[in-house]
Amino acid sequence: MPIAGFYKLYLSPNRKYIKKLHNLLGFVPGNLSLYRMAFRHKSVAQAVKKGVKNSNERLEFLGDAVLGCVIAEVLFKLYPYGDEGFLTELRSKIVSRVNLNQLARKLGFEQLIEYDTRMVNSTRQGSLLGDAFEALVGAVYLDKGYEFTKDFLINNIIKSHIDIHTLEQTETNFKSKLIEWCQRHSKDISFDLIENQEGESTKLFTIQAIVDGEVMGMGKEFSKKNAEKLAAEKACEALAI
Amino acid sequence: MPIAGFYKLYLSPNRKYIKKLHNLLGFVPGNLSLYRMAFRHKSVAQAVKKGVKNSNERLEFLGDAVLGCVIAEVLFKLYPYGDEGFLTELRSKIVSRVNLNQLARKLGFEQLIEYDTRMVNSTRQGSLLGDAFEALVGAVYLDKGYEFTKDFLINNIIKSHIDIHTLEQTETNFKSKLIEWCQRHSKDISFDLIENQEGESTKLFTIQAIVDGEVMGMGKEFSKKNAEKLAAEKACEALAI
Repeated sequence: MPIAGFYKLYLSPNRKYIKKLHNLLGFVPGNLSLYRMAFRHKSVAQAVKKGVKNSNERLEFLGDAVLGCVIAEVLFKLYPYGDEGFLTELRSKIVSRVNLNQLARKLGFEQLIEYDTRMVNSTRQGSLLGDAFEALVGAVYLDKGYEFTKDFLINNIIKSHIDIHTLEQTETNFKSKLIEWCQRHSKDISFDLIENQEGESTKLFTIQAIVDGEVMGMGKEFSKKNAEKLAAEKACEALAI
Repeated sequence: MPIAGFYKLYLSPNRKYIKKLHNLLGFVPGNLSLYRMAFRHKSVAQAVKKGVKNSNERLEFLGDAVLGCVIAEVLFKLYPYGDEGFLTELRSKIVSRVNLNQLARKLGFEQLIEYDTRMVNSTRQGSLLGDAFEALVGAVYLDKGYEFTKDFLINNIIKSHIDIHTLEQTETNFKSKLIEWCQRHSKDISFDLIENQEGESTKLFTIQAIVDGEVMGMGKEFSKKNAEKLAAEKACEALAI
């Protein structure tokens, strides 16, 4: 271990926090303020200037981009014959809020995130974790650079915690997700065909997903099934399911 | 100039192509096949295996991610007090298809792109350029690595060709864009308020953008203006305006 790392872990006044990060992440962090910011939800952030708060939201923006880039390369190389549609869909599954929340929970981020419980309702609590994971990626990037972040993500995160081949198999079925949610919340759900537009050789279907009489999503596709799928996906998005 | 660069530019059997790339990009390319692929539209691509074609679409997937990451960092550092909403919107403007098409045209990509004119209609021709630009970023990344690509994008592209501060000021007004398009194509356009849902202290408005009697986009927002804006944006997307 380099002397700086030894100092940080055993002698620095911040050694407790550094040790915690070291245990969770597997490396000795450099600029601690970046990591503290990555775990600071806006509900406990303070305005620093011009109304901008020192929360993790800016780091989340950066980390989301870095993560997207690393995953893109991993998939590009892992599936040399996968077309761009396949690669895009698989990446969406990997970086989905649901998946990142689970990942951050597994990594033990709950012990590091700072937020005000009174200001965050319970349904939003889960996604604080995924947000913090993205912000952490942004912090690692600024602290250590691209190559380090890529190695960290591949070796410490993807290889141990993300089962890409299983995600590849699971189809995110928005239609059944929406129907289940409606049943659980006693709401009516229907998929209504609004119109089909006939072209020369193809038909375009427009379908609305209607929850309790309200249009929550609409899909326009060349097959009824795909139009329903899209409508259901939009409805899931609108209802934050 | 290193000997390898000298050989490539003056002695290699591919020197003509290499010189062209060198003139356009400002550096001597390494793996030529990556660059050739970046400029190959699917209309002229050949199947290489399992139905996958050697077109630029996979590189476009990768390049889009690399570009998004570099721009994210540039904006993160350029606007230390910009919040994530501002950063996200500004990045979308920079990497919009319209902007990338213009950029690729300025860079002279038209002389390098290979495509079958019979298979690409004229409205799609413009966006071949932006697609090729993204694919090129993917090729540079695979050929030269992240840091090189970042320097190339910042020094050869962003500084000389992208006016970030002007883009920051221009608001992409989807509503007027949609209305203009409808006037030009003699189509009726209306924004219909479908319902407003009243919450305890807030109202949620649902607005549909209707073009020639057909719902082309829907927006649900807390203000009528924003609901219209969203509906117009979706309609522009659906109509590929």
